[in-house]
Amino acid sequence: MNNLVRRNILGVSAYVAGKPIEETKRQLGLREVIKLASNENPLGPSPRAVSAIKKAAGWVNRYPDSQGFYLKRRLARHYSLGAENIILGNGSDELIDIIIKTFVEDDQRILTSEGTFLEYKIIASVLGRGVDTVPLKYFKYDLEAMLRKIDKRTKLIFIANPNNPTGTYITKIELEYFLARIPDSVIVVVDEAYDAFIDVRDFPSASGYLRNKNVIILKTFSKAYGLAGLRIGLALARPGFIEYMERARQPFNVNSLAQAAAIAALDDKPFLARTRKATLEGRQYLYGALKRLGITYVASQANFILLNTGCDGVTVFKDMLKMGVIVRDMQQYGLKEYIRVTVGTKSENEKFIKALKRAI
Amino acid sequence: MNNLVRRNILGVSAYVAGKPIEETKRQLGLREVIKLASNENPLGPSPRAVSAIKKAAGWVNRYPDSQGFYLKRRLARHYSLGAENIILGNGSDELIDIIIKTFVEDDQRILTSEGTFLEYKIIASVLGRGVDTVPLKYFKYDLEAMLRKIDKRTKLIFIANPNNPTGTYITKIELEYFLARIPDSVIVVVDEAYDAFIDVRDFPSASGYLRNKNVIILKTFSKAYGLAGLRIGLALARPGFIEYMERARQPFNVNSLAQAAAIAALDDKPFLARTRKATLEGRQYLYGALKRLGITYVASQANFILLNTGCDGVTVFKDMLKMGVIVRDMQQYGLKEYIRVTVGTKSENEKFIKALKRAI
Repeated sequence: MNNLVRRNILGVSAYVAGKPIEETKRQLGLREVIKLASNENPLGPSPRAVSAIKKAAGWVNRYPDSQGFYLKRRLARHYSLGAENIILGNGSDELIDIIIKTFVEDDQRILTSEGTFLEYKIIASVLGRGVDTVPLKYFKYDLEAMLRKIDKRTKLIFIANPNNPTGTYITKIELEYFLARIPDSVIVVVDEAYDAFIDVRDFPSASGYLRNKNVIILKTFSKAYGLAGLRIGLALARPGFIEYMERARQPFNVNSLAQAAAIAALDDKPFLARTRKATLEGRQYLYGALKRLGITYVASQANFILLNTGCDGVTVFKDMLKMGVIVRDMQQYGLKEYIRVTVGTKSENEKFIKALKRAI
Repeated sequence: MNNLVRRNILGVSAYVAGKPIEETKRQLGLREVIKLASNENPLGPSPRAVSAIKKAAGWVNRYPDSQGFYLKRRLARHYSLGAENIILGNGSDELIDIIIKTFVEDDQRILTSEGTFLEYKIIASVLGRGVDTVPLKYFKYDLEAMLRKIDKRTKLIFIANPNNPTGTYITKIELEYFLARIPDSVIVVVDEAYDAFIDVRDFPSASGYLRNKNVIILKTFSKAYGLAGLRIGLALARPGFIEYMERARQPFNVNSLAQAAAIAALDDKPFLARTRKATLEGRQYLYGALKRLGITYVASQANFILLNTGCDGVTVFKDMLKMGVIVRDMQQYGLKEYIRVTVGTKSENEKFIKALKRAI
């Protein structure tokens, strides 16, 4: 069999997803399970999005709008850009694939950090592209080391800001210094999946650099808008980039309910405000509770917290699973003592702290 | 800009989708528009699927089940196979991409026919893989010519059965003769997107060859089940193939509403029966009406008919568009005088014939 498979596929190790609630109930015979493993919105989807889904459900016999006309028009207004600055994807995951297919030749290389979103590396390896990484520095992207790592073969750089799974962020000054030193032959992808949860003033919105730099920004509806199950993300870039990326996009990649839901979610300001409030308050609650337990954590600008259990992270993960609390071990990231917990509702956060106390 | 883009992307021409109803209304200022352009189900989605969507809508804040556990279990029963024989995709389109990524090295080639589903060629070209084609013979796949075209570099063969856009099919004897002569180093993908509309006895279900041949079968929920807007397809293959294809699949490629809707649609036997009846009756009605107009057509085993307008197909398409009837011109397929029409409801078919009469 192996000789029929592409050589680089033999070396790909698949992404390990957060355990679904249903699967955990099924496997462990539990009745109540909370999931704080995938940085989902604990308040549910935007209620306006749910209404839009129900309204559009009767038309799913029709193919989706291949051009995403109405959603792009709404997004253009949202970001004060043109529709020609936007491409839609089946989640950011697909956009990573599209970007690599569009810009990175077989012999060119991709640069990113260790301890960051794993899909950059996995998708690159499926496509047979080489990836270079530099270690995190105090849980942050080490931009200086990344600059030193750039060579003639480097074509694409992935930066998550804020970073997943650490929650750290790159400041405006740091990003500007970095972009100013990037060669014209290199494209920088800034993944802003978690930008809704920022509460610092020196966070750089990368959209200010779209015009003058080779910058592509990734955004998602999976986190603050609560649409992870529908799969919809987008990339912002200058029209010339978008035009070529559109060639690598499959015509019906974004389903019609996702398009309808995303439009509604963008208009749902009260839901977004509630989500932000719950996340920021939940973060503060968890910081306090972790401190009282003597557990060190990484201060986060996202809707999750990376924390050091002081024990084996996988064991803690498994023990908590049996108590009906799904978190994420960090084995795939090489952070053996760590787990990552998504900020949940007030009662979920309390249940998490209780279970953590018992597990460690 | 061009020097930043991968060379093969510069040569990719994007798929031209069937015009959406909304877009046509918007652009032409029409109030009533019927779409017979994308081989969608004219009866709507399966009603049970619509209920399932509405029921699941409130949970789209959660990521989809990455493993598609419940849907695969239901599909395994449907096809009398194991869950390990199944991989799910964001439409068949994505599975084509996954199959090429999994099996075709950069220097290996893909073989298919001219006058067939365009995405085989487009997706291959985005991935930088070369594609060889042989012409259709009397609107049918010329399997003899394809056998002659196989050489050492050939790795993958795409066959649509029944074929889109011609509606012709390969018989059981023809497929068996073909598969018996395929080298062990070659994989044959049989795309059975339209198999629900067959009404001949010698049509071969390719699933009989999964065990002993290098065969992968594509199926879709976009046609008979009426779920085109949700994006869900699947591939059947032996477990060894599926295992490697899973490595090339993104973890959350199939949205959760698609999974829920597909399970419900599989149980909706009455809807499938109504769809089949309407399509087969509609096909007969259209044959008769076309004959009376003196228009030649290709006998079809699918839910569409390819017909020769005797004029320029693009002009006929545009004229019919102004009358509120969206069909598909065949320019991209090199069939200049032809249009393809999806079998619609009784009243849609009548409206189509009226508009066609005026257009030619």
